Amino acid sequence: MGIQVVKNKAMEIAMKIKKLGQDDPRRIVHSIKVGVALTLVSLFYYWKPLYDGFGASGIWAVMTVVVIFEFTVGGTLSKGLNRGLGTLLAGSLGVGVNYLANLSGQKGEPFVLGIFVFLIAASATFSRFFPGIKARYDYGVLIFILTFSLVSISGYRIDEFLTLAHQRLSTILVGGAICIMISILVCPVWAGETLHNSVTSNINKLADYLEGFGGEYFYCCEDGEHGVATEKGKSFVEGYKAVLNSKSMEDSMANFARWEPKHGKFRFRHPWKHYLKIGSLTRQCAYQIEALNRHLCPQLQTQDPSQLRRMIEVPCKTLSSESGKALKALATGMKAMTNPSSSSQVHLNAAKSAMNDLKDSLKLGTAQTTNLLEIIPDATVASILIEIVKSVEDLSEAVVELSLKAHFKSIEATVSPEKPQLLHKGTINPLVEAEDEQPHVISVRGTEDGDLTEKKGSSGTTSLPT
Amino acid sequence: MGIQVVKNKAMEIAMKIKKLGQDDPRRIVHSIKVGVALTLVSLFYYWKPLYDGFGASGIWAVMTVVVIFEFTVGGTLSKGLNRGLGTLLAGSLGVGVNYLANLSGQKGEPFVLGIFVFLIAASATFSRFFPGIKARYDYGVLIFILTFSLVSISGYRIDEFLTLAHQRLSTILVGGAICIMISILVCPVWAGETLHNSVTSNINKLADYLEGFGGEYFYCCEDGEHGVATEKGKSFVEGYKAVLNSKSMEDSMANFARWEPKHGKFRFRHPWKHYLKIGSLTRQCAYQIEALNRHLCPQLQTQDPSQLRRMIEVPCKTLSSESGKALKALATGMKAMTNPSSSSQVHLNAAKSAMNDLKDSLKLGTAQTTNLLEIIPDATVASILIEIVKSVEDLSEAVVELSLKAHFKSIEATVSPEKPQLLHKGTINPLVEAEDEQPHVISVRGTEDGDLTEKKGSSGTTSLPT
Repeated sequence: MGIQVVKNKAMEIAMKIKKLGQDDPRRIVHSIKVGVALTLVSLFYYWKPLYDGFGASGIWAVMTVVVIFEFTVGGTLSKGLNRGLGTLLAGSLGVGVNYLANLSGQKGEPFVLGIFVFLIAASATFSRFFPGIKARYDYGVLIFILTFSLVSISGYRIDEFLTLAHQRLSTILVGGAICIMISILVCPVWAGETLHNSVTSNINKLADYLEGFGGEYFYCCEDGEHGVATEKGKSFVEGYKAVLNSKSMEDSMANFARWEPKHGKFRFRHPWKHYLKIGSLTRQCAYQIEALNRHLCPQLQTQDPSQLRRMIEVPCKTLSSESGKALKALATGMKAMTNPSSSSQVHLNAAKSAMNDLKDSLKLGTAQTTNLLEIIPDATVASILIEIVKSVEDLSEAVVELSLKAHFKSIEATVSPEKPQLLHKGTINPLVEAEDEQPHVISVRGTEDGDLTEKKGSSGTTSLPT
Repeated sequence: MGIQVVKNKAMEIAMKIKKLGQDDPRRIVHSIKVGVALTLVSLFYYWKPLYDGFGASGIWAVMTVVVIFEFTVGGTLSKGLNRGLGTLLAGSLGVGVNYLANLSGQKGEPFVLGIFVFLIAASATFSRFFPGIKARYDYGVLIFILTFSLVSISGYRIDEFLTLAHQRLSTILVGGAICIMISILVCPVWAGETLHNSVTSNINKLADYLEGFGGEYFYCCEDGEHGVATEKGKSFVEGYKAVLNSKSMEDSMANFARWEPKHGKFRFRHPWKHYLKIGSLTRQCAYQIEALNRHLCPQLQTQDPSQLRRMIEVPCKTLSSESGKALKALATGMKAMTNPSSSSQVHLNAAKSAMNDLKDSLKLGTAQTTNLLEIIPDATVASILIEIVKSVEDLSEAVVELSLKAHFKSIEATVSPEKPQLLHKGTINPLVEAEDEQPHVISVRGTEDGDLTEKKGSSGTTSLPT
């Protein structure tokens, strides 16, 4: 019995390990890379000539590798540069303070050194509370305090702090160089790319929700689709929740990304900060979806649909699915780094015209209304959907701004914009009121699945280290 | 001119430093504590007997102090224990591996060691991707890799790894002990207390919003209060936004808090995890307030209020302010660690009865309605407010659950429950439909300010390290 329990536990852990690796194979690669870097750095000890050159301070190279090798290239670069800079600055300052302390004679030296250590450690520690320093140079300041203490304290004892400082710097350089080279050359994980993929995949999650919402909310009206709607429902309903708490991950990725050199389609000074703006607007939209999701209660939908619900069904479905498609077009364009304005604009315009239809329906809907309380859920859903169009528009503007800042290539001339599809045949929106409306053709097609799967393929989500 | 610019810049930085210290004086104290700890540890070098005892490995004590001294006691304890445990485990494993490598002869030794370093570093690095390990033992695993590499690699060279391991462990113990003692004895910053204060202050922020919302939303109906409403508005409107992104801070504080011993009113095994549940429900409520806040557009309120708005004004205001008061009672009770059920329940019941009034108003409101589109903002606000009551109820249940788990003292017998106050004289709610309703007396008072200020005083918000 006891053995069986152990066996089950072991199987469980093995399954967890397998899942962790399958979720993101880059984790396995990263672990191997760290192992290789550490084994390489061991050469300082195993290979005699290297050992003779660097002496016992080769342990600093080992330490550097263990401490600065991060999952992303940007993380490794940021920690490596912070460590190098912190060590250099603190080393020079330590030498200067040692010189000053020497002037104060045998008796005075420990006191002078002690006072300096106290003052510099306390003020450097305080500087770590500045948000700007905390976000980017926290590790550098830590290393600064560490090195300064070590150099000034050991300087008093060993009397060869210059050698110590020199050895430490050069071993850190070697360790750091090994880390950075392996990190960049062997299957690199770029923080910038991760941020880019994460932001686009978050927009995609919202798009999935909006595309599915109409069918799910109104499913009781079409009993034939019931099964389909709930099966689809499971996959899209939970997706957007991950967006709500995405801020801290995006912030740290953006901080790492700014250290990264040109990679793939990203320049050295890619406007990473702008991704934070897009991320924030995405969360704004997710908060609205959270409000919308509260109205997806199955128990409410078993009752007979109100007249209002029947009236707003078509414009609500169109609005929701076109908003979703506009977001999907934005995400697809962003992911491919092409200017998404034309294709998403068409869907956005369709969503806006559906919004006007919805407003018209609401204007007409009054006559038949007998009880305001009964129609309030539907009215609220309509109101939130109307606001979501505004949110999608803001997001669209932010993505267009990014595409200008980051010089996304324009595909307007080569690829024809996707045509909007209306969910229900025969629904034609004749009135277009929005001021920035462009003339466009509305094609009425029956199916939307082909188009959906095609777009889904190009918007693969990337899971992130937690 | 150039000097003036430098002067201004210096003044600006000085102001920032002053503000940072004033916002949270614990930051200054923490910086001084780090300075003192480092100066103390320097004794290993300055004071000859200590130096003779520990040798050059006294630098490990310095390193330990710099690296593990965190802002909160829990953070310091967590890092210290992680460092100690990681070193101990890796040290023993390193000794074992060295013994094995020795068996394989002069030539084979580096290969065996290299393979072990690779395997253990790679698998330990992979283990850091497990969310559970990442949250609590990340630093311990890092130190494990570091120490194992150092012990096994240096063991090959120096042939006295036992001394090295012993020296390192004892200096880490000394450095860690100094940190932990200073951290606990001199103006301690407890992660648990910080979490407790932060969660209660977040509930308070939502309460402020809800208490202010009614007056702000309906201010156009009472021109006399206009100035008051907007002035008050500035302070409460922004407060709740900080709640939206509070998750990562709460998670890390809860992780630190579990290491902390009994302090103040908190036991060693205080149910810190339950605070995360309350925090999550608070964010749920904040998302709803975010939806509500979207309807506080001043330009919409300049137009003539609709009939519906006049009808729902009183119940909406009562609902919102009573929900706010219920939250405030919860926060006050939680902060004082007394059972908040009685006082908050009274307000919650008042909010529920206002909700029923609101529903009645909505039922009656139909006859006069001429255009559904015009009344949709008001209907949405009413709908969100109705949901907020449910949210406040959930939050109230979670706080009651916490008060049971954490054995909050009950004050029901000694302190009479606060009486609910209705904003408008003459509004009496005769119908109570909620199933868990208790009989209670509704006193109709004209002013609410005296009561408000009294409660505000006891719910001081604590700013947190960023």
